[in-house]
Amino acid sequence: MENRNLTLLTDLYELTMMNGYLKEGYEDQVAVFDVFFRQHSLITYSLAAGLQQAAEYVKSLRFEKQDLEYLESLGLFNEAFLEYLRNFVFTGDIYAVPEGTVVFPGEPILTVKAPVMQAQLIETALLNIINHQTLIASKAAKICYAAGNGDSVMEFGLRRAQGPDAGIYGTRAAVIGGCGSTSNVLAGKMFGIKVSGTHAHSWVMNFPSELDAFRAYADTYPNAALLLCDTYDTLRSGVPNAIKVFDELRTKGLKPLGIRLDSGDLAYLSKAARKMLDAAGYKDAIICASGDLDEYSIRSLKSQGAAIDLWGVGTKLITGDELPALGGVYKLAAVEENGTLVPKIKLSDNAAKITNPGFKNILRIYDKNTGKAEADLIFLRGEKFDESKPLTVFHPVDTWKKTTFENYTVRELQVPVILGGKLVYNFPSVSEIREYANREKETFWDEYRRIDNPHIYKVDLSDKLYNLKTEMIRAIRG
Amino acid sequence: MENRNLTLLTDLYELTMMNGYLKEGYEDQVAVFDVFFRQHSLITYSLAAGLQQAAEYVKSLRFEKQDLEYLESLGLFNEAFLEYLRNFVFTGDIYAVPEGTVVFPGEPILTVKAPVMQAQLIETALLNIINHQTLIASKAAKICYAAGNGDSVMEFGLRRAQGPDAGIYGTRAAVIGGCGSTSNVLAGKMFGIKVSGTHAHSWVMNFPSELDAFRAYADTYPNAALLLCDTYDTLRSGVPNAIKVFDELRTKGLKPLGIRLDSGDLAYLSKAARKMLDAAGYKDAIICASGDLDEYSIRSLKSQGAAIDLWGVGTKLITGDELPALGGVYKLAAVEENGTLVPKIKLSDNAAKITNPGFKNILRIYDKNTGKAEADLIFLRGEKFDESKPLTVFHPVDTWKKTTFENYTVRELQVPVILGGKLVYNFPSVSEIREYANREKETFWDEYRRIDNPHIYKVDLSDKLYNLKTEMIRAIRG
Repeated sequence: MENRNLTLLTDLYELTMMNGYLKEGYEDQVAVFDVFFRQHSLITYSLAAGLQQAAEYVKSLRFEKQDLEYLESLGLFNEAFLEYLRNFVFTGDIYAVPEGTVVFPGEPILTVKAPVMQAQLIETALLNIINHQTLIASKAAKICYAAGNGDSVMEFGLRRAQGPDAGIYGTRAAVIGGCGSTSNVLAGKMFGIKVSGTHAHSWVMNFPSELDAFRAYADTYPNAALLLCDTYDTLRSGVPNAIKVFDELRTKGLKPLGIRLDSGDLAYLSKAARKMLDAAGYKDAIICASGDLDEYSIRSLKSQGAAIDLWGVGTKLITGDELPALGGVYKLAAVEENGTLVPKIKLSDNAAKITNPGFKNILRIYDKNTGKAEADLIFLRGEKFDESKPLTVFHPVDTWKKTTFENYTVRELQVPVILGGKLVYNFPSVSEIREYANREKETFWDEYRRIDNPHIYKVDLSDKLYNLKTEMIRAIRG
Repeated sequence: MENRNLTLLTDLYELTMMNGYLKEGYEDQVAVFDVFFRQHSLITYSLAAGLQQAAEYVKSLRFEKQDLEYLESLGLFNEAFLEYLRNFVFTGDIYAVPEGTVVFPGEPILTVKAPVMQAQLIETALLNIINHQTLIASKAAKICYAAGNGDSVMEFGLRRAQGPDAGIYGTRAAVIGGCGSTSNVLAGKMFGIKVSGTHAHSWVMNFPSELDAFRAYADTYPNAALLLCDTYDTLRSGVPNAIKVFDELRTKGLKPLGIRLDSGDLAYLSKAARKMLDAAGYKDAIICASGDLDEYSIRSLKSQGAAIDLWGVGTKLITGDELPALGGVYKLAAVEENGTLVPKIKLSDNAAKITNPGFKNILRIYDKNTGKAEADLIFLRGEKFDESKPLTVFHPVDTWKKTTFENYTVRELQVPVILGGKLVYNFPSVSEIREYANREKETFWDEYRRIDNPHIYKVDLSDKLYNLKTEMIRAIRG
């Protein structure tokens, strides 16, 4: 995260628990924590994102003098603990699914195995980073699915993002999710993302007339000007003036780029503008639309035959709109006792909130003929799957729902990222992640990707994990 | 913003317009832009926030070598423009309402008067910062209103915030809005905010038993331990174990702090836990509740007589939940021509989207007897209001709705922040802003502050501004 020191970006209780662990002699106890998000009616398939920033955060942890002075001033920590922090270095392991991987609720998308004090410190920031980017990448995937082609979706949300980071890393996630470009220049520079844009209403208002304004913009960018047509009156003033300027460009042998519509009935206006542009001989001129767009409005506009080539999507993409938080959690799954990992479970009266115990990974099962993903299995590390033998999976609650795969391949989704405190993973570029994510999406049938009532993808537990969980619940609740 | 260089945190079109302005000879033209947000069913009264970070951003603008190299690489800008950027310093004026001021849709909460190229560059980041913090401060104000007392509301949202800044500056805004403390240690350090917290489920799961875990935490923080009671079974295990540990503390002459409930039916559980604590002699023990709380659930819990003393509010506060973006805009209001400011207007078929022209300020009218705010008037700078004479205001659309004030005082809300590029404003501390905001809220009748269907506060235009606007619309649309 740009070399900022975010070491204190944590909840106070992480530090008070760490202090307690040190006092109670738990300094060297190793624990395993999983990051996952829960079922939610608005969460279907999601794209994991934020791993690079999460790993950079972990690698840059260091308590500086002024951090320690501040903590000391709180009167909550003794000198032994402050001394521990002074020497703090993360020495544990982090496993995670690569960014851009399709993931589902309940799956451990990131797993930390580290001394419990270290694992506890990083909980808050890991959740903050992974929650945010995974949310926005997943929203972008829906929007790009509705648009039919991510290259036609421009991320325009910086001014409505929840602070600079939400704009910067939200843009990164939006591109991982499929967007083809962004208006955000800093994100463009940081991540090598294509930048795009048009001009503002203020440009038009600042000139003696709309026509003067269009002429001036086309004078500056003869081949790259998308003229914004809705400042005064789209069809009576904006589009006719744009066509006048296009005619002037044409006489100079130049090819005009197109127009932007930012308000009003985009279905009606785009079709009317298309007719006017075509009639004037500008069949190649692009029509770009913006204004509170999301996957629902884009789908609606497309179903109405709107003549829109490019979509500028801002507020509802960069905030997640109706779902502004993924709700990811970080739950203890195991602790090491005498060199052995002992699984741990958190109970709840709500079956969906009971955690999956043990040190786990995710197995994705693909149909060998179609290459499509058919089900995921959360399993305990160490379990082996023999692709030459049939594999039966069953629903973790409604266990009578069973499926047997015979002609299949499997893939383990989590990979090592940090081992013994050392980075062991090469982070791909954002454009590489975007390409990987696009391939990932293609491994899912449209029925899982559609926007309304998508088919529920199977996320089951291995026999071994299911039995372990059932026995642990029985042992506690009797 | 922590000395980060956010100069490129802008939309590409700001830079392409600046390039166009330079090319077209508008380098020295002064323009006036207003920041305001629009009517929305979920926006009632709001608390302005983010000004300090916005001003710091403006003051730290500088295009560094690598920024210019990046911009050059885009192939969109000529050398004259890059040279302009190389020497860029903000030399304009910024006026704004102080942070913590109650504001309403349509009011210019910040106004920039600067050479148009400068004013354009800062649009995106100003909106990003002001939109975000004003949104969260306003959400916090609603939540604290429901809780009845902001001191009882702890901001717990960092892990669900949209990236680090959303957590850091969202916490700042939440405290401006009324929250009494935060779990976010970095925000605590940066802004001198009280930090608070309990412990996690993982702490309980990591010990041989819940009782062992409670004992260990109470051993570390004998007077400050809020024991989390819902890991296994709140009433059959959690609360009885907490009482056992409290008894042990009592025999040592210590006074236990209390418990936290994080799931289940908080109304039922808190009342049952209260009875158990009281029966055991812990009438002073605090009950803290958390778990997807917001103004609606807090109000509901209070109406059910829930025995909750402290509210830990996370996701729905730090994201804004149902309204994750304020939708603030930055609209051209005037341009200087031959030394005179000429008002500008943007039209729309939607009357609510027509902008208010001219270089403006906001007047708040208070009843002299009650000290309560009665109406706001957006007016043109230079207009004078004589409190000794009656003042009639009227609705800007339904002009037959009139009110005359006779015994009143007025206050101009915008103050100078930056003049001629120099900071002329002393930023108060966050706790000072919070106190000011609490006084601000008290100047509004409960009818304006209530959560459901609040009374609509009058935001009218001065006669002079109304007439100017009407004439300009007529001149354009005929």
